[in-house]
Amino acid sequence: MGKVIVDISMSLDGFVTASNIRPEESMGDGGQRLHEWAFNSKDDRNREILAQGGKATGAIIAGRRTYDTSVPWWGADGPTGPSRLPVFVVTHTVPEEVPEGSVYSFVTDGIESTLQEAKAAAGDKNVTVMGGAEIAQQYIRAGLVDEISIHLVPVLFGSGTRLFENLGDEHIQLEIAPKVVVTATAIHQQFRVVK
Amino acid sequence: MGKVIVDISMSLDGFVTASNIRPEESMGDGGQRLHEWAFNSKDDRNREILAQGGKATGAIIAGRRTYDTSVPWWGADGPTGPSRLPVFVVTHTVPEEVPEGSVYSFVTDGIESTLQEAKAAAGDKNVTVMGGAEIAQQYIRAGLVDEISIHLVPVLFGSGTRLFENLGDEHIQLEIAPKVVVTATAIHQQFRVVK
Repeated sequence: MGKVIVDISMSLDGFVTASNIRPEESMGDGGQRLHEWAFNSKDDRNREILAQGGKATGAIIAGRRTYDTSVPWWGADGPTGPSRLPVFVVTHTVPEEVPEGSVYSFVTDGIESTLQEAKAAAGDKNVTVMGGAEIAQQYIRAGLVDEISIHLVPVLFGSGTRLFENLGDEHIQLEIAPKVVVTATAIHQQFRVVK
Repeated sequence: MGKVIVDISMSLDGFVTASNIRPEESMGDGGQRLHEWAFNSKDDRNREILAQGGKATGAIIAGRRTYDTSVPWWGADGPTGPSRLPVFVVTHTVPEEVPEGSVYSFVTDGIESTLQEAKAAAGDKNVTVMGGAEIAQQYIRAGLVDEISIHLVPVLFGSGTRLFENLGDEHIQLEIAPKVVVTATAIHQQFRVVK
Protein backbone atom coordinates (compact mmCIF):
# COMPACT_ATOMS: atom_id res chain seq x y z
CA MET A 1 0.00 0.00 0.00
CA GLY A 2 1.48 3.33 -1.01
CA LYS A 3 1.69 6.42 1.12
CA VAL A 4 0.03 9.79 0.73
CA ILE A 5 2.73 12.43 0.50
CA VAL A 6 2.52 16.18 0.35
CA ASP A 7 5.59 17.01 -1.71
CA ILE A 8 6.40 20.64 -2.34
CA SER A 9 9.15 23.24 -2.59
CA MET A 10 8.98 25.99 0.01
CA SER A 11 10.93 29.13 0.82
CA LEU A 12 12.47 29.32 4.29
CA ASP A 13 9.69 31.70 5.25
CA GLY A 14 7.03 29.20 4.28
CA PHE A 15 5.84 30.29 0.85
CA VAL A 16 5.14 27.90 -2.02
CA THR A 17 4.64 30.68 -4.55
CA ALA A 18 5.88 34.25 -4.67
CA SER A 19 3.36 37.08 -4.91
CA ASN A 20 1.53 38.23 -8.02
CA ILE A 21 0.50 34.88 -9.49
CA ARG A 22 -0.90 35.25 -13.00
CA PRO A 23 -1.24 33.11 -16.12
CA GLU A 24 2.22 34.10 -17.41
CA GLU A 25 3.84 33.50 -14.00
CA SER A 26 2.14 30.60 -12.29
CA MET A 27 4.67 30.76 -9.44
CA GLY A 28 4.42 34.53 -9.00
CA ASP A 29 7.19 37.07 -9.54
CA GLY A 30 10.50 35.33 -9.06
CA GLY A 31 8.75 32.25 -7.74
CA GLN A 32 10.55 29.89 -10.12
CA ARG A 33 13.42 30.27 -7.64
CA LEU A 34 11.68 27.46 -5.73
CA HIS A 35 12.16 25.04 -8.62
CA GLU A 36 15.77 25.83 -9.46
CA TRP A 37 16.93 22.75 -7.57
CA ALA A 38 14.72 20.59 -9.79
CA PHE A 39 15.29 22.11 -13.20
CA ASN A 40 18.48 24.10 -13.07
CA SER A 41 20.93 22.31 -10.80
CA LYS A 42 24.26 20.74 -11.66
CA ASP A 43 24.14 18.73 -8.47
CA ASP A 44 23.30 15.11 -9.32
CA ARG A 45 21.66 14.60 -5.94
CA ASN A 46 18.90 17.01 -6.90
CA ARG A 47 18.22 15.05 -10.07
CA GLU A 48 18.25 11.82 -8.08
CA ILE A 49 15.71 13.16 -5.63
CA LEU A 50 13.46 14.20 -8.45
CA ALA A 51 13.88 10.83 -10.15
CA GLN A 52 13.33 8.84 -6.94
CA GLY A 53 10.19 10.79 -6.17
CA GLY A 54 8.96 10.12 -9.67
CA LYS A 55 9.63 6.38 -9.48
CA ALA A 56 7.84 6.00 -6.16
CA THR A 57 4.77 7.93 -7.27
CA GLY A 58 1.78 6.31 -8.92
CA ALA A 59 -0.66 9.21 -9.04
CA ILE A 60 -0.79 12.93 -8.37
CA ILE A 61 -3.42 15.11 -6.77
CA ALA A 62 -3.65 18.79 -7.64
CA GLY A 63 -6.04 21.57 -6.79
CA ARG A 64 -8.12 23.22 -9.46
CA ARG A 65 -6.23 26.52 -9.32
CA THR A 66 -2.92 24.71 -9.69
CA TYR A 67 -4.35 22.89 -12.68
CA ASP A 68 -5.69 26.08 -14.26
CA THR A 69 -2.46 28.03 -13.87
CA SER A 70 -0.22 25.12 -14.83
CA VAL A 71 -2.00 23.32 -17.67
CA PRO A 72 -0.66 25.79 -20.29
CA TRP A 73 2.84 24.62 -19.32
CA TRP A 74 2.08 21.02 -18.56
CA GLY A 75 0.06 20.24 -21.66
CA ALA A 76 -1.61 16.85 -22.09
CA ASP A 77 1.23 14.92 -20.38
CA GLY A 78 0.87 16.68 -17.03
CA PRO A 79 3.59 17.68 -14.57
CA THR A 80 5.61 14.49 -15.02
CA GLY A 81 5.99 14.98 -18.75
CA PRO A 82 6.77 11.77 -20.65
CA SER A 83 6.09 9.65 -17.54
CA ARG A 84 2.48 10.70 -17.91
CA LEU A 85 1.45 9.92 -14.34
CA PRO A 86 -2.29 10.35 -13.83
CA VAL A 87 -3.32 13.64 -12.23
CA PHE A 88 -6.52 13.86 -10.20
CA VAL A 89 -7.81 17.39 -9.94
CA VAL A 90 -10.00 18.35 -6.98
CA THR A 91 -12.61 20.68 -8.40
CA HIS A 92 -16.18 21.86 -8.13
CA THR A 93 -16.83 21.80 -11.86
CA VAL A 94 -15.15 19.97 -14.73
CA PRO A 95 -13.47 22.40 -17.14
CA GLU A 96 -15.04 22.67 -20.56
CA GLU A 97 -11.83 22.19 -22.46
CA VAL A 98 -9.17 19.69 -21.52
CA PRO A 99 -6.13 18.84 -23.66
CA GLU A 100 -6.89 15.82 -25.82
CA GLY A 101 -5.50 12.50 -24.65
CA SER A 102 -4.48 14.09 -21.38
CA VAL A 103 -3.58 12.57 -18.01
CA TYR A 104 -6.15 14.60 -16.08
CA SER A 105 -9.22 13.34 -14.24
CA PHE A 106 -11.57 15.76 -12.51
CA VAL A 107 -13.21 14.75 -9.27
CA THR A 108 -16.09 16.86 -8.05
CA ASP A 109 -17.14 15.15 -4.84
CA GLY A 110 -14.40 16.12 -2.44
CA ILE A 111 -10.88 15.32 -1.32
CA GLU A 112 -11.60 11.86 0.09
CA SER A 113 -13.19 10.68 -3.09
CA THR A 114 -10.32 12.15 -5.08
CA LEU A 115 -7.87 10.30 -2.87
CA GLN A 116 -9.73 7.00 -3.38
CA GLU A 117 -9.47 7.37 -7.14
CA ALA A 118 -5.83 8.39 -6.94
CA LYS A 119 -5.02 5.43 -4.68
CA ALA A 120 -6.74 3.04 -7.04
CA ALA A 121 -4.68 4.42 -9.92
CA ALA A 122 -1.43 4.40 -7.91
CA GLY A 123 -1.66 0.74 -6.87
CA ASP A 124 1.31 -0.02 -4.59
CA LYS A 125 2.93 3.31 -5.30
CA ASN A 126 2.52 6.62 -3.51
CA VAL A 127 -0.04 9.32 -4.10
CA THR A 128 1.62 12.72 -4.21
CA VAL A 129 -0.36 15.79 -3.26
CA MET A 130 1.52 18.43 -5.20
CA GLY A 131 -0.56 21.41 -4.13
CA GLY A 132 -1.62 24.12 -4.22
CA ALA A 133 -1.38 25.07 -0.62
CA GLU A 134 -5.13 24.92 0.02
CA ILE A 135 -5.45 21.34 -1.15
CA ALA A 136 -2.41 20.32 0.86
CA GLN A 137 -3.95 22.00 3.92
CA GLN A 138 -7.24 20.18 3.41
CA TYR A 139 -5.52 16.80 3.23
CA ILE A 140 -3.33 17.51 6.26
CA ARG A 141 -6.29 18.76 8.29
CA ALA A 142 -8.33 15.69 7.39
CA GLY A 143 -5.55 13.44 8.71
CA LEU A 144 -5.10 11.83 5.31
CA VAL A 145 -1.40 12.61 4.85
CA ASP A 146 1.33 10.13 5.81
CA GLU A 147 4.36 12.20 4.94
CA ILE A 148 5.31 15.80 4.25
CA SER A 149 8.26 16.19 1.94
CA ILE A 150 9.67 19.70 1.91
CA HIS A 151 12.30 20.97 -0.47
CA LEU A 152 13.41 23.97 1.59
CA VAL A 153 14.82 26.70 -0.61
CA PRO A 154 17.22 29.32 0.78
CA VAL A 155 15.23 32.46 0.10
CA LEU A 156 12.82 34.69 1.99
CA PHE A 157 9.93 35.76 -0.25
CA GLY A 158 8.21 37.98 2.31
CA SER A 159 4.88 37.38 0.60
CA GLY A 160 3.09 34.87 -1.59
CA THR A 161 1.11 31.73 -0.85
CA ARG A 162 1.84 30.15 2.52
CA LEU A 163 1.90 26.38 2.67
CA PHE A 164 1.01 26.02 6.33
CA GLU A 165 -2.10 27.99 7.12
CA ASN A 166 -5.66 27.25 8.19
CA LEU A 167 -4.60 24.06 9.94
CA GLY A 168 -6.53 24.78 13.12
CA ASP A 169 -5.08 24.84 16.64
CA GLU A 170 -4.36 21.17 17.18
CA HIS A 171 -0.65 20.41 17.27
CA ILE A 172 0.24 17.76 14.72
CA GLN A 173 3.29 15.75 15.74
CA LEU A 174 5.77 14.74 13.07
CA GLU A 175 8.83 12.53 12.91
CA ILE A 176 11.95 13.53 11.05
CA ALA A 177 12.96 11.01 8.41
CA PRO A 178 16.72 10.67 8.90
CA LYS A 179 17.65 11.00 5.26
CA VAL A 180 17.99 14.76 4.83
CA VAL A 181 19.85 15.77 1.67
CA VAL A 182 21.63 19.11 1.70
CA THR A 183 22.46 20.73 -1.63
CA ALA A 184 23.28 24.34 -2.48
CA THR A 185 19.80 24.99 -3.86
CA ALA A 186 17.57 23.11 -1.43
CA ILE A 187 17.52 21.09 1.78
CA HIS A 188 15.37 18.05 1.07
CA GLN A 189 13.63 16.88 4.22
CA GLN A 190 10.82 14.51 4.98
CA PHE A 191 8.51 14.32 7.95
CA ARG A 192 6.20 11.46 8.87
CA VAL A 193 2.86 12.41 10.36
CA VAL A 194 2.36 10.71 13.73
CA LYS A 195 -1.16 9.32 13.80
CA MET B 1 34.58 40.70 13.89
CA GLY B 2 31.68 38.55 14.99
CA LYS B 3 28.52 37.90 13.05
CA VAL B 4 24.93 38.85 13.79
CA ILE B 5 22.88 35.69 13.99
CA VAL B 6 19.16 35.17 14.39
CA ASP B 7 19.10 31.87 16.25
CA ILE B 8 15.74 30.35 17.07
CA SER B 9 13.72 27.16 17.25
CA MET B 10 10.78 26.97 14.86
CA SER B 11 7.99 24.51 14.09
CA LEU B 12 7.83 23.19 10.53
CA ASP B 13 4.91 25.54 9.97
CA GLY B 14 6.96 28.54 10.97
CA PHE B 15 5.92 29.27 14.55
CA VAL B 16 8.36 30.23 17.31
CA THR B 17 5.75 30.03 20.04
CA ALA B 18 2.49 28.14 20.29
CA SER B 19 -0.72 30.05 20.92
CA ASN B 20 -1.93 31.42 24.24
CA ILE B 21 1.28 32.95 25.56
CA ARG B 22 0.93 34.05 29.18
CA PRO B 23 3.20 34.56 32.17
CA GLU B 24 2.99 30.91 33.24
CA GLU B 25 3.60 29.65 29.68
CA SER B 26 5.98 31.99 27.92
CA MET B 27 6.08 29.66 24.91
CA GLY B 28 2.29 29.23 24.74
CA ASP B 29 0.36 26.00 25.23
CA GLY B 30 2.65 23.09 24.38
CA GLY B 31 5.24 25.50 23.00
CA GLN B 32 8.05 24.01 25.07
CA ARG B 33 8.03 21.30 22.40
CA LEU B 34 10.30 23.66 20.44
CA HIS B 35 12.99 23.46 23.12
CA GLU B 36 12.95 19.71 23.72
CA TRP B 37 16.03 19.29 21.55
CA ALA B 38 17.91 21.72 23.78
CA PHE B 39 16.79 20.64 27.24
CA ASN B 40 15.43 17.15 26.97
CA SER B 41 17.45 15.25 24.42
CA LYS B 42 19.65 12.22 24.89
CA ASP B 43 21.38 12.94 21.58
CA ASP B 44 24.84 14.40 22.27
CA ARG B 45 24.76 16.32 19.01
CA ASN B 46 21.95 18.50 20.34
CA ARG B 47 24.01 19.32 23.43
CA GLU B 48 27.02 20.05 21.22
CA ILE B 49 25.05 22.45 19.08
CA LEU B 50 23.83 24.28 22.15
CA ALA B 51 27.36 24.38 23.56
CA GLN B 52 28.95 25.51 20.29
CA GLY B 53 26.38 28.27 19.89
CA GLY B 54 27.08 29.36 23.43
CA LYS B 55 30.86 29.43 22.95
CA ALA B 56 30.65 31.48 19.76
CA THR B 57 28.26 34.04 21.25
CA GLY B 58 29.44 37.17 23.02
CA ALA B 59 26.16 39.00 23.52
CA ILE B 60 22.44 38.45 23.13
CA ILE B 61 19.70 40.74 21.89
CA ALA B 62 16.11 40.18 23.01
CA GLY B 63 12.88 42.08 22.53
CA ARG B 64 11.09 43.60 25.48
CA ARG B 65 8.20 41.15 25.38
CA THR B 66 10.60 38.22 25.37
CA TYR B 67 12.37 39.78 28.34
CA ASP B 68 9.13 40.38 30.22
CA THR B 69 7.78 36.88 29.70
CA SER B 70 11.11 35.17 30.29
CA VAL B 71 12.77 37.05 33.14
CA PRO B 72 10.80 35.12 35.79
CA TRP B 73 12.51 31.97 34.48
CA TRP B 74 15.87 33.43 33.55
CA GLY B 75 16.49 35.37 36.74
CA ALA B 76 19.53 37.60 37.09
CA ASP B 77 21.81 35.33 35.04
CA GLY B 78 19.78 35.56 31.84
CA PRO B 79 19.08 32.86 29.24
CA THR B 80 22.62 31.45 29.31
CA GLY B 81 22.50 30.73 33.04
CA PRO B 82 25.93 30.44 34.64
CA SER B 83 27.65 31.74 31.47
CA ARG B 84 25.98 35.05 32.21
CA LEU B 85 26.27 36.43 28.67
CA PRO B 86 25.12 40.05 28.51
CA VAL B 87 21.58 40.54 27.22
CA PHE B 88 20.61 43.76 25.47
CA VAL B 89 16.89 44.38 25.53
CA VAL B 90 15.32 46.55 22.84
CA THR B 91 12.69 48.58 24.62
CA HIS B 92 10.84 51.87 24.71
CA THR B 93 11.08 52.25 28.45
CA VAL B 94 13.41 50.77 31.06
CA PRO B 95 11.53 48.50 33.47
CA GLU B 96 11.25 49.76 37.01
CA GLU B 97 12.44 46.58 38.64
CA VAL B 98 15.32 44.51 37.32
CA PRO B 99 16.88 41.54 39.15
CA GLU B 100 19.86 42.70 41.17
CA GLY B 101 23.29 42.07 39.65
CA SER B 102 21.65 40.97 36.42
CA VAL B 103 23.05 40.60 32.90
CA TYR B 104 20.42 42.88 31.33
CA SER B 105 20.95 46.25 29.67
CA PHE B 106 18.01 48.20 28.28
CA VAL B 107 18.44 50.21 25.12
CA THR B 108 15.75 52.73 24.29
CA ASP B 109 16.96 54.30 21.06
CA GLY B 110 16.35 51.59 18.52
CA ILE B 111 17.67 48.37 17.08
CA GLU B 112 20.82 49.80 15.51
CA SER B 113 21.96 51.39 18.72
CA THR B 114 21.19 48.15 20.57
CA LEU B 115 23.28 46.26 18.04
CA GLN B 116 26.20 48.67 18.50
CA GLU B 117 26.18 48.10 22.22
CA ALA B 118 25.84 44.36 21.81
CA LYS B 119 28.72 44.26 19.31
CA ALA B 120 30.93 46.26 21.64
CA ALA B 121 30.18 43.79 24.42
CA ALA B 122 30.65 40.75 22.17
CA GLY B 123 34.10 41.73 20.89
CA ASP B 124 35.21 39.13 18.35
CA LYS B 125 32.30 36.85 19.14
CA ASN B 126 28.84 36.74 17.61
CA VAL B 127 25.78 38.69 18.58
CA THR B 128 22.76 36.41 18.78
CA VAL B 129 19.31 37.84 18.19
CA MET B 130 17.22 35.37 20.13
CA GLY B 131 13.82 36.90 19.44
CA GLY B 132 10.99 37.43 19.79
CA ALA B 133 9.83 37.25 16.25
CA GLU B 134 9.23 40.99 15.90
CA ILE B 135 12.76 41.91 16.86
CA ALA B 136 14.18 39.26 14.55
CA GLN B 137 12.00 40.65 11.74
CA GLN B 138 13.21 44.18 12.40
CA TYR B 139 16.85 43.13 12.23
CA ILE B 140 16.33 41.05 9.07
CA ARG B 141 14.39 43.84 7.37
CA ALA B 142 17.10 46.37 8.22
CA GLY B 143 19.71 44.16 6.54
CA LEU B 144 21.64 43.80 9.79
CA VAL B 145 21.59 40.00 9.99
CA ASP B 146 24.46 37.86 8.66
CA GLU B 147 23.05 34.43 9.43
CA ILE B 148 19.75 32.79 10.27
CA SER B 149 20.09 29.66 12.35
CA ILE B 150 16.92 27.60 12.49
CA HIS B 151 16.35 24.63 14.73
CA LEU B 152 13.46 23.11 12.80
CA VAL B 153 11.20 21.07 15.04
CA PRO B 154 8.97 18.31 13.65
CA VAL B 155 5.59 19.62 14.69
CA LEU B 156 2.81 21.68 13.15
CA PHE B 157 1.42 24.16 15.68
CA GLY B 158 -1.26 25.59 13.40
CA SER B 159 -1.18 28.86 15.35
CA GLY B 160 1.12 30.94 17.51
CA THR B 161 3.78 33.53 16.72
CA ARG B 162 5.19 33.34 13.20
CA LEU B 163 8.88 34.01 12.80
CA PHE B 164 8.77 35.18 9.22
CA GLU B 165 6.21 37.91 8.80
CA ASN B 166 6.20 41.61 7.98
CA LEU B 167 9.39 41.31 5.94
CA GLY B 168 8.06 43.27 2.96
CA ASP B 169 7.99 42.07 -0.64
CA GLU B 170 11.70 42.09 -1.50
CA HIS B 171 13.10 38.60 -1.91
CA ILE B 172 16.07 38.06 0.37
CA GLN B 173 18.50 35.52 -1.01
CA LEU B 174 20.18 33.11 1.37
CA GLU B 175 22.93 30.52 1.15
CA ILE B 176 22.66 27.15 2.82
CA ALA B 177 25.52 26.46 5.21
CA PRO B 178 26.50 22.87 4.38
CA LYS B 179 26.63 21.67 7.95
CA VAL B 180 23.08 20.59 8.59
CA VAL B 181 22.67 18.38 11.66
CA VAL B 182 19.73 15.99 11.71
CA THR B 183 18.55 14.65 15.06
CA ALA B 184 15.24 13.10 16.08
CA THR B 185 14.07 16.29 17.78
CA ALA B 186 15.31 19.00 15.41
CA ILE B 187 17.03 19.64 12.10
CA HIS B 188 19.65 22.28 12.76
CA GLN B 189 20.23 24.42 9.69
CA GLN B 190 21.98 27.69 9.01
CA PHE B 191 21.49 30.18 6.23
CA ARG B 192 23.81 33.04 5.32
CA VAL B 193 22.12 36.22 4.15
CA VAL B 194 23.44 37.25 0.72
CA LYS B 195 24.15 40.99 0.85
